[in-house]
Amino acid sequence: MARNTERRTLLSDAAVRVLSHQGSRGLTYRAIDAEAGVPTGTASNYFGSRDAIIAAILTRISERLQPDPDAVQPAADAPGIETLAAYLRDILHRLTADRDAALALFELRLDATRRPSVAEALSMWRREGLMADVDFTETAGLPADRADIVLFHYALDGLLLDQLTVPIDDDADPDAAATTLARRILGH
Amino acid sequence: MARNTERRTLLSDAAVRVLSHQGSRGLTYRAIDAEAGVPTGTASNYFGSRDAIIAAILTRISERLQPDPDAVQPAADAPGIETLAAYLRDILHRLTADRDAALALFELRLDATRRPSVAEALSMWRREGLMADVDFTETAGLPADRADIVLFHYALDGLLLDQLTVPIDDDADPDAAATTLARRILGH
Repeated sequence: MARNTERRTLLSDAAVRVLSHQGSRGLTYRAIDAEAGVPTGTASNYFGSRDAIIAAILTRISERLQPDPDAVQPAADAPGIETLAAYLRDILHRLTADRDAALALFELRLDATRRPSVAEALSMWRREGLMADVDFTETAGLPADRADIVLFHYALDGLLLDQLTVPIDDDADPDAAATTLARRILGH
Repeated sequence: MARNTERRTLLSDAAVRVLSHQGSRGLTYRAIDAEAGVPTGTASNYFGSRDAIIAAILTRISERLQPDPDAVQPAADAPGIETLAAYLRDILHRLTADRDAALALFELRLDATRRPSVAEALSMWRREGLMADVDFTETAGLPADRADIVLFHYALDGLLLDQLTVPIDDDADPDAAATTLARRILGH
């Protein structure tokens, strides 16, 4: 059982890399097996369908992007908006540091335009993430409502895509940009 | 000559659709010929390489997204920030209305992570767009600097990707979101 879990994680990580490196069209059982360095047929034993691969990728990305509790602990003496900015910068850092996960998520967004089942899985995943952000904000008594956080998500997605692919501005400092966006969008 | 230009436009539009519908891996001469409904071999006569296809796609998207001069004319009596918001909403409208062009641009962003020549072409294209936005802002005497406009670009990209793929919030009104983002990011 433990061995199965380990192997499933190995295959899921390989699927994330295949998606990031080869795009959604390259996401095949064969490519996952090759990337994971396992015998042909292994991935199809673990994942019974393309949808099962997508589900495993999303579960694995959630695990990999798990927030660091120390980084998001609201400091009692910090003004609310700066605590919130720190929390959101932490999300950006985790995504930037895990380039394959972040690019895989963008690949899934485009794949979702072509496959309703991917749209459904990704939609649920994104909504759960938004709910977690709203919960954190409310629990910590931070000064932002759901609509503010949605707007900030747009900005953070665009900033992340920019940094991971083709930056529009070489001089831009992503950390400073995230902080300014948090202050302006959330601290209005 | 006129016939050649017409056919090049037909093939470029077909390439935009192929990229949007099938992703960057589906972008082949054969797929473009099929999409354009022309004999096999036509696209390769017009575009000597994959890079030439990408260049034609970017040129054609620029033509298709040409601003409507009436929509972006600064109204003498409107407060600066609202004129700027109207200009930026116009960009959003043009991209949302031309779904294939917008999705093709996102496909190219991800393709750029895998192909340096695509990164170079797209980088130049994006910088030209940014310069045009900064020029418009300065010429119209609007109250935003380059750094503000870069931040707003991130937000607009994220909003657009959200609307074109998997919306994080069903209730979100993209127009209202763009206006609020413009006011908060640019009108700080």
